[in-house]
Amino acid sequence: MKVSAYIATSLDGYIARPNGDINWLMEADNSEEKEDYGYKEFSDSVDCMVMGRNSMEMVMSFPEWPYEGKRVVVLSNALKETPTQLKDKVDLYSGSLVKLVTELENDRCKRIYIDGGKTIQSFINEELLTDITITKIPILLGEGLSLFGKIKHDIKLKHIESKSYPSGFVKSTYEF
Amino acid sequence: MKVSAYIATSLDGYIARPNGDINWLMEADNSEEKEDYGYKEFSDSVDCMVMGRNSMEMVMSFPEWPYEGKRVVVLSNALKETPTQLKDKVDLYSGSLVKLVTELENDRCKRIYIDGGKTIQSFINEELLTDITITKIPILLGEGLSLFGKIKHDIKLKHIESKSYPSGFVKSTYEF
Repeated sequence: MKVSAYIATSLDGYIARPNGDINWLMEADNSEEKEDYGYKEFSDSVDCMVMGRNSMEMVMSFPEWPYEGKRVVVLSNALKETPTQLKDKVDLYSGSLVKLVTELENDRCKRIYIDGGKTIQSFINEELLTDITITKIPILLGEGLSLFGKIKHDIKLKHIESKSYPSGFVKSTYEF
Repeated sequence: MKVSAYIATSLDGYIARPNGDINWLMEADNSEEKEDYGYKEFSDSVDCMVMGRNSMEMVMSFPEWPYEGKRVVVLSNALKETPTQLKDKVDLYSGSLVKLVTELENDRCKRIYIDGGKTIQSFINEELLTDITITKIPILLGEGLSLFGKIKHDIKLKHIESKSYPSGFVKSTYEF
């Protein structure tokens, strides 16, 4: 089973401004053709999602639920109940990530999409992430929420491929 | 005139460990052929260098002076005198970077190589850098000295080219 992150960062490594704002990202691609940077292909390969509460709240603000047909798990210690509008769409989970991954594997998940900065950091720290795809946006923000955080020891990765786009975005995939 | 940075970072954006150690970088390329990642071509295009005192001290520890034939300026407010062994090799400078760049341009420098994390950040903040080449090493360090720092406002860059190598290094060049 693959446990995958797929995320964009600024050139200085931020996934959002300090307040969570990602408008800089939404506005970054001003090329004519709408390029999806391989997102649909990635998304089609995913049958499960794990995200934090912040990501869930961001997705709730979208006009339509983008994860129809996928099993979605939201990590939260604080939430005791699923928000009404997501009742049949997500499962809440708090507890061991190793157990969660084992459970999803037993439920025949083939690929889990790990979303959100903190969630990705937790999966890296628990050595559960199998691959990460980072799309570098050619902008410096100077400060913000970092994709990566502290780790217990160095982690060497294997570079799989990189691709650059006319917009200046550079997408690189690494395996752990 | 070009004012260029050319530097390697970990995947999480560090140029060195917190204590300045770059052994992780020296040990990162264990591929058979010794690839120089375009360094010689870049170095041959450079006729001037500007570096901070930390970089100067690191270079002094090398068995041989690597910048023969180039004009080298060391930025330092603290140093009052050039170290004896570098007397005929470097000029000390403290003061306005804009003035320094103008002076080097008047002296017919075609391309200045800006080296060292703090020095690069200063040149970015003064809007003096014209291009940056970053070679991403496929390793996470978790902490260290960041290539980029705080800036006054967003800076959009233009992606020029990216190239990946069998070692897993990915080199990207951007113009400001």
